[in-house]
Amino acid sequence: MTTLAGHAIEHSIETNMLTKHGSPDFLKTLYKQAQTIQVHKNHIFFLREDKAESFYIVLHGWVKLFRESIDGNQAVIDVLTAGHTFGENALFENMTYPYSAEAVETAQLIKLPLQLLKNEVEDNPKMAMAMLKTMSKYRTQQDMELEHRTLQNAPQRIGCFLLKLLPHPDSKDPQNISLPYDKTLVSSRLGMQPETFSRALGKLKKETDLEVKGSQVTVTNVDKLAEFCCNACSTIFPCGD
Amino acid sequence: MTTLAGHAIEHSIETNMLTKHGSPDFLKTLYKQAQTIQVHKNHIFFLREDKAESFYIVLHGWVKLFRESIDGNQAVIDVLTAGHTFGENALFENMTYPYSAEAVETAQLIKLPLQLLKNEVEDNPKMAMAMLKTMSKYRTQQDMELEHRTLQNAPQRIGCFLLKLLPHPDSKDPQNISLPYDKTLVSSRLGMQPETFSRALGKLKKETDLEVKGSQVTVTNVDKLAEFCCNACSTIFPCGD
Repeated sequence: MTTLAGHAIEHSIETNMLTKHGSPDFLKTLYKQAQTIQVHKNHIFFLREDKAESFYIVLHGWVKLFRESIDGNQAVIDVLTAGHTFGENALFENMTYPYSAEAVETAQLIKLPLQLLKNEVEDNPKMAMAMLKTMSKYRTQQDMELEHRTLQNAPQRIGCFLLKLLPHPDSKDPQNISLPYDKTLVSSRLGMQPETFSRALGKLKKETDLEVKGSQVTVTNVDKLAEFCCNACSTIFPCGD
Repeated sequence: MTTLAGHAIEHSIETNMLTKHGSPDFLKTLYKQAQTIQVHKNHIFFLREDKAESFYIVLHGWVKLFRESIDGNQAVIDVLTAGHTFGENALFENMTYPYSAEAVETAQLIKLPLQLLKNEVEDNPKMAMAMLKTMSKYRTQQDMELEHRTLQNAPQRIGCFLLKLLPHPDSKDPQNISLPYDKTLVSSRLGMQPETFSRALGKLKKETDLEVKGSQVTVTNVDKLAEFCCNACSTIFPCGD
């Protein structure tokens, strides 16, 4: 076990379930087999329908999960950062990945054997329950995403994305946000064409007194932004989602 | 146990896991406590965030799952029919429902105690694994739905909906489809305004030689329809999804 990998497994957000619910034998083997890897921008971890042997925990950087249409366009399903896990749900899909995964910048990750997790989920009811909870949380997130695609317009979807990045969602003070990744990826994540994104951002700035300089955004009026976006949503700001 | 409820539990699609993986004690109690209920159109089973005590299996009719925004609009998350289960994922959401559920026409269902399923999932690893598989399948469906919302235009999304209803997807012959529920609900299910739906259906008819009379649709050229829709999708027709 590398100290780094052990530390990351213990402290990562979604994988607390590994250390919290994993049996001692499982954890011992897991720590032994954990590999810390460094990858470059655009590194493809796997493609949808590849045979799955590993799952990953992000330590640093951003990873996008996507599906690609026959005519070559990409739909970004999720963009993940430190503490998040991907590839593990191949366990329940006959050991093939249900999406593709690519590094969107230089990234550091832990690579872990999927078979080990499979055995543990099958043998340890606590791990199975923890995994069910994680999957249910994800399902609710996806339901929320579909709700937003249905009920929110493009400026509201961008505003919602920004509200989730506020360092102090409970404060009324003006706040600065750095976009976590480039605008093209933000627009893909929100299911918009870059041109739609630009127009919608322009409208959002006008409606909610937002200031944007490159990747720096200043939310001058949190209430105004929240009112503009969250009336078209099922949950009240700050929603914590 | 009513014979009807027992029969439905044994034969329903998604709940095969109950009879296949349930322990004998669990099944005995389940059969005893199963209630067959009949509800009218617009019956609300529960609202999102209600405390959850039951889950349901649809025997006959259609049920929509939805989320409602603060300003009163509905996003339809799913529309379910015979053999499908809903409400069961409240198990992993602190026993509150993560969506609302309403009958879209007269419907017959089995109502079952959620606590019983909770105990069985916690005590029986086979049931937990079966539930993980079901949830994973649903996650992939939702990912696919997000992909379609991103990459398919409105006529393609309607065409995709119709292709899934073909009685003989492997045949090249012209085929008739009855829309399973009214067009307003179809448009909500696809995340479209009714006017967008009408315009998109008009375009689809022209592009793919579709004939539409009320709720009756004739697909005269299956290949043409599949080519029009499925090039903007990640899976090849017939996809079985």
